[in-house]
Amino acid sequence: MEEKKIAVIGLGLIGGSLAMALRGFEGYEILGVDTSGETLAFARENGVADRVLAEAEPALAEAELVFLCLHPEEILRFLRDHAGAFRPGAVVTDVCGVKTAIVKGASVLPPTVEFLGGHPMAGKESGGIQNASRDLFAGAHYLITPDESTRQSTLTLMERVAARLGCRDLIKTTPERHDEMIAYTSQIMHVMAAALCDDPELFQYSGFEGGSFRDCTRVAALDVSLWTQLFSLNAEALCAVLARLEGSLRSYRETIAAGDRDGLTRKLTFSSGRKREMNRRQSRKKETE
Amino acid sequence: MEEKKIAVIGLGLIGGSLAMALRGFEGYEILGVDTSGETLAFARENGVADRVLAEAEPALAEAELVFLCLHPEEILRFLRDHAGAFRPGAVVTDVCGVKTAIVKGASVLPPTVEFLGGHPMAGKESGGIQNASRDLFAGAHYLITPDESTRQSTLTLMERVAARLGCRDLIKTTPERHDEMIAYTSQIMHVMAAALCDDPELFQYSGFEGGSFRDCTRVAALDVSLWTQLFSLNAEALCAVLARLEGSLRSYRETIAAGDRDGLTRKLTFSSGRKREMNRRQSRKKETE
Repeated sequence: MEEKKIAVIGLGLIGGSLAMALRGFEGYEILGVDTSGETLAFARENGVADRVLAEAEPALAEAELVFLCLHPEEILRFLRDHAGAFRPGAVVTDVCGVKTAIVKGASVLPPTVEFLGGHPMAGKESGGIQNASRDLFAGAHYLITPDESTRQSTLTLMERVAARLGCRDLIKTTPERHDEMIAYTSQIMHVMAAALCDDPELFQYSGFEGGSFRDCTRVAALDVSLWTQLFSLNAEALCAVLARLEGSLRSYRETIAAGDRDGLTRKLTFSSGRKREMNRRQSRKKETE
Repeated sequence: MEEKKIAVIGLGLIGGSLAMALRGFEGYEILGVDTSGETLAFARENGVADRVLAEAEPALAEAELVFLCLHPEEILRFLRDHAGAFRPGAVVTDVCGVKTAIVKGASVLPPTVEFLGGHPMAGKESGGIQNASRDLFAGAHYLITPDESTRQSTLTLMERVAARLGCRDLIKTTPERHDEMIAYTSQIMHVMAAALCDDPELFQYSGFEGGSFRDCTRVAALDVSLWTQLFSLNAEALCAVLARLEGSLRSYRETIAAGDRDGLTRKLTFSSGRKREMNRRQSRKKETE
């Protein structure tokens, strides 16, 4: 009997970790694909996948399940360039942090191939296969964006994949809802950290930053190419959240500048109360886990 | 020979920690003053000071050195209410996070009393004497704002106090410069954290926050009364930094909304480069310590 195959396209932090975690999963052979000689050598030396390939086509021709683990624009390009190369009946999914643009881009695939948007919410400060780990997804939410064409068998397969990765859960959402959420819970923090570091005073006070400053600017040392793509492909949702934040900051500034202490007390009471409620929900959640 | 005395007015987190750390310093008797019965009982039971008093006047009549460890508005009120109660020749200093307003408020003191603005940059998420610790100031910067009327003997005394607290250094600056710095390195992070928690989406995505979200909103559960005072008394410097941040966020938003990827790449390259340079300076600083 021919062995079933999973292809992992792109062996960076996420793809490398995914391949490592999937080795041995339900008897699938894991095919790892990358174009970087250095990454391929590392993957071979460290047994990241069962087979490591420099070309995608042979892997796509054989794989029942394909994970696209590239930067967002590369996923869109890969889909265009390889639309005819997938095995009929294959399930193709991705792992990237924007979903509307990717799901839309996947419409180039022929009807014989099923696409399912995915986003296992895990990561690390430092990328690359050197930082990959089979435990990367432990405890993470795995978001997927199925639609009416998604087969039940695909959903149950992804349930088993998520369990294999040690994910906390597999959550169904829509691409639009995913992108709104990620704009608020992650992307805007990165814009803010970057904007803070643009301030002309940054280097003047080196050594005097409080913990809050270090925390808020931690993610500013970001991968420029990746985040340019993530922000650009989620422009609408991100700009809506940014406009709300600007309005909220302006409202604080005007209240402070006006010397309106009662108004400032009311605003801070509201905001800090919401944060305390968030903290309570999180600690209740931890208790029930 | 009469014993020399230091009075610590207000035995919260900062005052309590200060009193504990100063017990035994150069033979001074440490007089701790608070108005809360609960705080006084705790201070007595735990030996926070050599003597614990519910009234300030007896302590002020005897003390060569007085630390005002109250919230900013309470410091201003205390200075007005007790201007005539300090011992002639006494040095009066404070520990709060704004300096221009406090130094200005200290002009009510008679010429026989010397005021020196101070800010040992230490703190904790949770306030109150229960969280006080003699190690609170270990490794902290201690900022002071001397002027031409400050005696050399006061500066050397504060050098010895800072050393006793375990501070990293004692740094002279101006009230205005201190307030500009604190607006950028601390206050704005608190406004931002609060503004983020005002977003109507806060509770919708509970459980899906990334580490960056938790880091940036950590300080939002703030002490409303204290921070209303700190922001209000530093309105000018804080509003200037806020206006710059709003402008920087708007510039990011407009670049993203316009689909200007080259522009976005340039902006992120600039910001992330500055953050990396900050990280390098910090790690070099750590190496030389």
